[in-house]
Amino acid sequence: MTDAYIVGAGQSSFGSFPEETYRTLFREAYEAAAPADLDPGDVDEAFVGTLGVGGRQIGLAGPVVTEHVGLHGVPCTRVENACAASGYALRQAVMAVESGMADLVLAGGVEVMTDTSAEATKYWLGVSGETEWERMAGTTFSGVYAQMADAYLREYDAPRRAMSEVAAKNHANGAKNPKAHLGFECSVDDAEAASVVADPLTLYHCCPTTDGAAAVFVASEEVAASFDDRVRVAGVGAASDRVGLFQRDTYTAVEASERAGETAYDAAGVADPRTDLDFAEVHDCFAIAELLAYEDLGFCDRGEAAALVGDGVTAIDGDLPVNTSGGLKSKGHPIGATGAGQAVEAFDQLTGNAGDRQLDDPERGLTHNVGGSGGAAVVHVFEAEGVSGA
Amino acid sequence: MTDAYIVGAGQSSFGSFPEETYRTLFREAYEAAAPADLDPGDVDEAFVGTLGVGGRQIGLAGPVVTEHVGLHGVPCTRVENACAASGYALRQAVMAVESGMADLVLAGGVEVMTDTSAEATKYWLGVSGETEWERMAGTTFSGVYAQMADAYLREYDAPRRAMSEVAAKNHANGAKNPKAHLGFECSVDDAEAASVVADPLTLYHCCPTTDGAAAVFVASEEVAASFDDRVRVAGVGAASDRVGLFQRDTYTAVEASERAGETAYDAAGVADPRTDLDFAEVHDCFAIAELLAYEDLGFCDRGEAAALVGDGVTAIDGDLPVNTSGGLKSKGHPIGATGAGQAVEAFDQLTGNAGDRQLDDPERGLTHNVGGSGGAAVVHVFEAEGVSGA
Repeated sequence: MTDAYIVGAGQSSFGSFPEETYRTLFREAYEAAAPADLDPGDVDEAFVGTLGVGGRQIGLAGPVVTEHVGLHGVPCTRVENACAASGYALRQAVMAVESGMADLVLAGGVEVMTDTSAEATKYWLGVSGETEWERMAGTTFSGVYAQMADAYLREYDAPRRAMSEVAAKNHANGAKNPKAHLGFECSVDDAEAASVVADPLTLYHCCPTTDGAAAVFVASEEVAASFDDRVRVAGVGAASDRVGLFQRDTYTAVEASERAGETAYDAAGVADPRTDLDFAEVHDCFAIAELLAYEDLGFCDRGEAAALVGDGVTAIDGDLPVNTSGGLKSKGHPIGATGAGQAVEAFDQLTGNAGDRQLDDPERGLTHNVGGSGGAAVVHVFEAEGVSGA
Repeated sequence: MTDAYIVGAGQSSFGSFPEETYRTLFREAYEAAAPADLDPGDVDEAFVGTLGVGGRQIGLAGPVVTEHVGLHGVPCTRVENACAASGYALRQAVMAVESGMADLVLAGGVEVMTDTSAEATKYWLGVSGETEWERMAGTTFSGVYAQMADAYLREYDAPRRAMSEVAAKNHANGAKNPKAHLGFECSVDDAEAASVVADPLTLYHCCPTTDGAAAVFVASEEVAASFDDRVRVAGVGAASDRVGLFQRDTYTAVEASERAGETAYDAAGVADPRTDLDFAEVHDCFAIAELLAYEDLGFCDRGEAAALVGDGVTAIDGDLPVNTSGGLKSKGHPIGATGAGQAVEAFDQLTGNAGDRQLDDPERGLTHNVGGSGGAAVVHVFEAEGVSGA
């Protein structure tokens, strides 16, 4: 089996662009991702992640954007796993390469979220909850994650302030990212003092509603050799779980993340993520989600996430920087584009192109993308050129 | 690379079941598909095709049905390419097995279409058209295919009656299929005399609005060896095209089908489909689509499709029976379930379990699934146990 490599990755600006369309945003990402020496005629497969409800293209939402960048004829599949849509699209691209059915694959995602009414957006955002018992009962996503936050703070007697520390850290990183939606700093006190959205979550504990697109080119080892930048996909893992939070065994862990991480670590030879990883992009749709991710992915023991962020371990100058891009919190969360967008940051870090956010020669990083409140999760481990297994 | 095998396939009844849900229908298909000696704990990947707009589960529409059959934790991805959703889900399953990332994969699809208002259904069915220039301009799918039919009949001076012969043939087959939605016979004269839906298409030239689900288990060669029934996936092909009909080079051919067929034939070693195939399930959402498929897939030359059906070549007792299941026309077309449902017929034919529709020891068959009016197509070639390449 061939290894899979990322040979190009890029994203549109993330933000509020109601005048843009899924096509124009995807094209912006495609052009940012395309390696200088790409021959589009060599692309032999495409996967596009999008949730894409509302007034936009619904059926054939994949081919409708790939045709717009000129990839007529290339097999294109829309992949949807709610907020993990393009994390799964990337995993499909890796699978296509490893199956031998494709040599150069475009994986990406796109979402336009701000061109509908507030009422439609509320509907929109609820569709990834469990339909009968969450969405139709009126539960919002903030409400679901607030239940997780409340359960976590109680179980471990953790301070709400830990979530504000996550927010302040991610905004500090996002302020250095020219493509971030909310590219400004926010202090811990700002986050603490902000309006409550769903107790205990304040406004700054919640990611914004974002438009954007991201794209990644995945190649076989042989094809990758002809490109200048190469990042190896060292491991991939995915898992599903019951879609409704109320159906799960625990509110204070996301088991799909844990399983996905274990699978990816096994494949990549990551024995201890605390020492074997140099950075991670995790799914911080709400600040509590980042704290849970620390524990689900083995960055610390259960109940220790508040201390991890409090001690600065996950700050950009810490031992294991998390969300150097700004994360969903500050960079933004255009649903279908988020997973591929995380891979863009990993690619930029591992090729030394992360600008003001550049880490000091990172060798290995992780991306972690969650659908809904944990009904699906996918984890990738990436390695810089020349690094071979942990 | 391992070969991929289907080791179990089954479907729910297709019909109008507004009292059922996507979960109950999918479970019915899952139970019909599961081989007697299946250990559900061995399933290590799942792909679910569904369009799934309307009041049903939208985000995480894959995991929400796999959890209902007890597959908690298994990576599950929703795949959508409009009416080709589960044809692509099946292709993803083959890819997963051939990549070595999975050994036993569930691929399926489900759609509930009759539990919404007529107005909602009209919206529903339009979503796979091109949004800006087809759907929002008021074009329906019948209208799109009517344009193709009109262009075809004019270009080749073919009789409308050929479409009625397709309808009569498929209803004759569907009348022998206990799971068919419209399991009754219809004569050529009935089809000719029926109300016009979109000229030149009459009611009997159009498939019904159907609820249903279908499922297929795909295994690696090693795992397949432990099951009683095995059908080899000899070749797979897929292609996309411009989503809007008006953007394409021709109205009288579906280029995505042609490309997908060529790829599948190359992989399967099919030199001449007219002699190397024993049957085919093709995408007859409208009768014109079956005629185009004959030509796109090389069953006859361009302009010869009317003669092919007229001469009985594609009848169940002809040289190349097409749509022995009844096809989308008579068996029904629950969007996301259709592609997997075609594979169910192929599996049943190749394992001698097609009941009153059973062909005489077929060795090799094809399935052909189209999204929208040709924005995506996927073709599989299947071989019975013991047959090795053409």
